[in-house]
Amino acid sequence: MKTAPRPASGKLLYAQSGGVTSVINASAAGVIEAARTHGVKVYAAHNGILGALREELIDTSKESKATIAALRHTPGGAFGSCRYKLKSLETHRAEYERLIEVLRAHDIRWFLYNGGNDSADTALKISQLGKAMGYDIRCIGVPKTVDNDLAMTDCCPGFGSVAKYIAVSTLEASLDVASMADTSTKVFILEVMGRHAGWIAAAAGLAGEGADAPPHVILFPENVFDEAAFLAKVKATVQRVGWCTVVASEGIRNAAGQFLAEAGTRDAFGHSQLGGVAPVLAALVKEKLGYKYHWALPDYLQRSARHLASKTDAEQAYAVGKAAVDYALAGKNAVMPVIVRSSDAPYRWKIEPAPLSKIANHEKKMPRNFMTRDGFGITAAARRYLAPLIQGELPPPYGKDGLPRYATLQNTMVAKKLPAFEI
Amino acid sequence: MKTAPRPASGKLLYAQSGGVTSVINASAAGVIEAARTHGVKVYAAHNGILGALREELIDTSKESKATIAALRHTPGGAFGSCRYKLKSLETHRAEYERLIEVLRAHDIRWFLYNGGNDSADTALKISQLGKAMGYDIRCIGVPKTVDNDLAMTDCCPGFGSVAKYIAVSTLEASLDVASMADTSTKVFILEVMGRHAGWIAAAAGLAGEGADAPPHVILFPENVFDEAAFLAKVKATVQRVGWCTVVASEGIRNAAGQFLAEAGTRDAFGHSQLGGVAPVLAALVKEKLGYKYHWALPDYLQRSARHLASKTDAEQAYAVGKAAVDYALAGKNAVMPVIVRSSDAPYRWKIEPAPLSKIANHEKKMPRNFMTRDGFGITAAARRYLAPLIQGELPPPYGKDGLPRYATLQNTMVAKKLPAFEI
Repeated sequence: MKTAPRPASGKLLYAQSGGVTSVINASAAGVIEAARTHGVKVYAAHNGILGALREELIDTSKESKATIAALRHTPGGAFGSCRYKLKSLETHRAEYERLIEVLRAHDIRWFLYNGGNDSADTALKISQLGKAMGYDIRCIGVPKTVDNDLAMTDCCPGFGSVAKYIAVSTLEASLDVASMADTSTKVFILEVMGRHAGWIAAAAGLAGEGADAPPHVILFPENVFDEAAFLAKVKATVQRVGWCTVVASEGIRNAAGQFLAEAGTRDAFGHSQLGGVAPVLAALVKEKLGYKYHWALPDYLQRSARHLASKTDAEQAYAVGKAAVDYALAGKNAVMPVIVRSSDAPYRWKIEPAPLSKIANHEKKMPRNFMTRDGFGITAAARRYLAPLIQGELPPPYGKDGLPRYATLQNTMVAKKLPAFEI
Repeated sequence: MKTAPRPASGKLLYAQSGGVTSVINASAAGVIEAARTHGVKVYAAHNGILGALREELIDTSKESKATIAALRHTPGGAFGSCRYKLKSLETHRAEYERLIEVLRAHDIRWFLYNGGNDSADTALKISQLGKAMGYDIRCIGVPKTVDNDLAMTDCCPGFGSVAKYIAVSTLEASLDVASMADTSTKVFILEVMGRHAGWIAAAAGLAGEGADAPPHVILFPENVFDEAAFLAKVKATVQRVGWCTVVASEGIRNAAGQFLAEAGTRDAFGHSQLGGVAPVLAALVKEKLGYKYHWALPDYLQRSARHLASKTDAEQAYAVGKAAVDYALAGKNAVMPVIVRSSDAPYRWKIEPAPLSKIANHEKKMPRNFMTRDGFGITAAARRYLAPLIQGELPPPYGKDGLPRYATLQNTMVAKKLPAFEI
């Protein structure tokens, strides 16, 4: 961990990256409020790193204290995010140099990048290039991803709220199915996010405990989909319980390595990809077992459902934002504030810096001992890990109209100083 | 309205019918708490009218006061519901006679049927047959349906909470899409319930007002789907706003009268029906406009989301349950307590009895003047009607585990007195 004296002047640039979450703006609020305390002006890049490349910078000092506070309970990415990965320093040096040029033009001395492992990699490279080019810039990663797959941190801000949404939705929909199973739907399939790691699917397991409680079957992307075992488990559950709730990760694959979501369906134009493993599983259940089914695919609803955020998650999201500023102003570089757990129950956590080099481009899978032997459920170890992350409620304020009062920013752009740059 | 002296003794039978809602149990709580006040014992039919036919009756007096109170915030149907419509009195007289036989065997003098227009029809027929068979039974309908399609009542308990869920979800997911549109999803499609009437889709319109606010396109089942007009509206919206949120009723049809959900897709087995108009629309957008899309289909999540219930709706659901008991014990017969609106803003409503004969088998469509001229939005008149129905929050209590504390009933069965009956 390198520390250095704080620059005499300078601004802080904050950017949001990749898929947004219901609490990424809480991290933004943590960043901006902490920086204001220290008298440091915060610019936000419009649409993530693209805004930095295009010199599209938002002056957050134009926003009121109340608006910034309201970011704590506003989902989505208030400054815009993007799916854009900077390529390697060797092949795309011009992009990195442009970034340094923009930072220099606006006297930006701290860069905080709020994202996943790709973003950690970018922040690390910029810190290295700044050094090589003799420009004093400190880069701090701010962790964010619903996928919960970042290395070094016990959990990722954004995950706990999706986990809570999926656990509550599994519980609620299962009460519905249980009421009607005698004459209607017997198998309900809920498709959840998670292309490579089954953390979100695992969280559904918190909805109930014991063989007869929903969800009865969880399908993790870490396991090869075994059609016969799946059908046998569904059939046994319907025969014993009367109905069956299945939670499936979007990323499950068959033995040939194909995504199930792409293996089965064809759209009106004959294309094979509609996205959606739930309808494929539903068709299988109907064809092989004859049960009436329903399926749900909440998609973006799950990662934007700020109305059902986990208080633990929202607090951690704010805390990593604030810590990132503290680290930056203390002169740390190429680190990320990560969450360290010291106790499961009562849940205790703190924040510590971890080097970006140990986070960049790593992916944390779910441990094998979090899945039951048959692969269709979660273990006690998984429950101990997951349980604290969905604890607590922190609903947004509601207006008289019955809708959450989410923040709307002015997003005042900073005047450009440089010629346009072709991306 | 006929009234008669209250029987000297007797029990009250309550049954839940058809698709459940997040507040149907609030009606059950209203029924049971009101009956307890009057010292009347309530039996609940297990799985709706089937429980009455099979003589599967639950003794609700075995449940504690706290458990019944908790029904007010528990989604699903606590005693089980069913999709089972009694056929005509002429062709299936034996079933109706069996019902009277069960009622007589257990000295049941009041029958409260919580459902939609089919249930109103059944309750009406039982009241008529009771009279014909000389058995003194008063039948009261208790309104319930997320479809909001019952005649005589201003709105239907169950609808307001789905409406709130869909409006909030549309708002939240749109914030997500707006953040990412520059490099990711440009068109987001949310499929909502509503096979014949567009009330739920219309409620999504409460998420925003003005041409640039989401949802930008609403597809109602009342209108024939016009592919060219739809694509033109989506394209114009993306070009102007940068992205586009579409809300589609599951029941939209093309000019040939086919459900779009059935017209486009084939599953792995070559069957045409997967359910899901959203993927069909998404494929169309991709094929014809080339935009990146995402789609969501919350299915049962929308009608079981008690965590996001409308306070207005939950209170009305409780009130109609209580009123049904008051009517029954006052000797009314063949009526339903309906909601009468006296003012939009401030919202004022009261409950009055309406004859089941005017509700049975009628279906209330959305008025044409609730849809904008181009058919893709809602009018000011629709807003005035819909706005009060999603007002207020009444979240369930949460446990330390971060999950709602939903009621679990013992559902103690009453000893049978009759031989089995073949349905």
